[in-house]
Amino acid sequence: MNILSLDTACGDISAAVIKDGRVYVSEPAENTSGKTRSTTIVPVLEQLLKKAGLEWHQLHALALGAGPGSFTGLRIAAATLAGINSGLKLPIYHLSSLAITARQADVDGPVWVLEDARAGEAFTGCYQRQQQLHADSCMTWADVETLPPAHFCCHGEPPVALEHWTRLPFSLDRSAALAMETELVSAGLNADEVDLPIYPTPVYLQLSQAERNAHA
Amino acid sequence: MNILSLDTACGDISAAVIKDGRVYVSEPAENTSGKTRSTTIVPVLEQLLKKAGLEWHQLHALALGAGPGSFTGLRIAAATLAGINSGLKLPIYHLSSLAITARQADVDGPVWVLEDARAGEAFTGCYQRQQQLHADSCMTWADVETLPPAHFCCHGEPPVALEHWTRLPFSLDRSAALAMETELVSAGLNADEVDLPIYPTPVYLQLSQAERNAHA
Repeated sequence: MNILSLDTACGDISAAVIKDGRVYVSEPAENTSGKTRSTTIVPVLEQLLKKAGLEWHQLHALALGAGPGSFTGLRIAAATLAGINSGLKLPIYHLSSLAITARQADVDGPVWVLEDARAGEAFTGCYQRQQQLHADSCMTWADVETLPPAHFCCHGEPPVALEHWTRLPFSLDRSAALAMETELVSAGLNADEVDLPIYPTPVYLQLSQAERNAHA
Repeated sequence: MNILSLDTACGDISAAVIKDGRVYVSEPAENTSGKTRSTTIVPVLEQLLKKAGLEWHQLHALALGAGPGSFTGLRIAAATLAGINSGLKLPIYHLSSLAITARQADVDGPVWVLEDARAGEAFTGCYQRQQQLHADSCMTWADVETLPPAHFCCHGEPPVALEHWTRLPFSLDRSAALAMETELVSAGLNADEVDLPIYPTPVYLQLSQAERNAHA
């Protein structure tokens, strides 16, 4: 089973290939600002496939870090995979971007993922190894502060103090964490047995600015 | 020569296929908000190819409405075409989004395209049929107001009065205008003779918000 995974929910391009159980991860991409990321993803993936000794048509499935996360990041990853899959028609695993982040912390106990979603809100999820303890959701930082303090991890800086919470460092590169999450999800969900979508669908969990304006 | 063209610079999905000189245009896509557009493009293109009786591998070139225009629109179109072209490796024509807009006005005389770029700025270009009279650029609306009044066209509403200017209505659907611009550009630039890029590159002409923040 050969799977290619892509995640840009945190801004940078993370990618991994699993080839018959062996893991290959992308080199950190340089100069991938928002402006250029839309067109640097495919070269990064091609370099990674080359490293794994694979051609596009030898893949059996794709995996997407589907969100929640940066709106633009999610859209660009989804659009790129949609384009790639126009020819391949492979099943697509949808991974939680927060689950990938939790894997970066690489701890045995439960860990909250608390990513700033701006507009006073946070993307939150709670994981312990294979288990999802709290469903991914979008809540206000004020509501986060009412949760019992625990271990957490995140990219960037939380906009509130989070007293008595303990921030865990990342011990795994995001591409490696993406590979782990892909292995785990694909092991539990055999693409031959379940009907996976061939079109990627980002998970936003938050109103876009345009939707906020329409509701205002 | 079979060419597939895509433009989302104005928000909506516009697409056209030219098959041996015959033109096929996409149906107006429904429910293509910013949130869903990233994954509705490929189904729209597949429907269009089906209408033209073509498979992906029967295309000889792609064309992209490359900008300037909506940052997200440009990125998503570029990311989708980059993904599609990961397998096809076709030459990509880069079309001016403003030239496509000028074609929508469908007039003989010169016409300015003045699209609001927000932040007090406008994307401007001036066209007369096949001719580009002024290069596409990004200028302040205050500078636009110092230009000699002329005919203009645009999507949306200009944020300034533009006294003595005459706004021309659109008489062509954007997909039809996209097809015309593709035919014109590909007729002048034979993909077999010139080295066209296989990776799409959006033309922004404006600093992104992140770049503005970095400069501030």
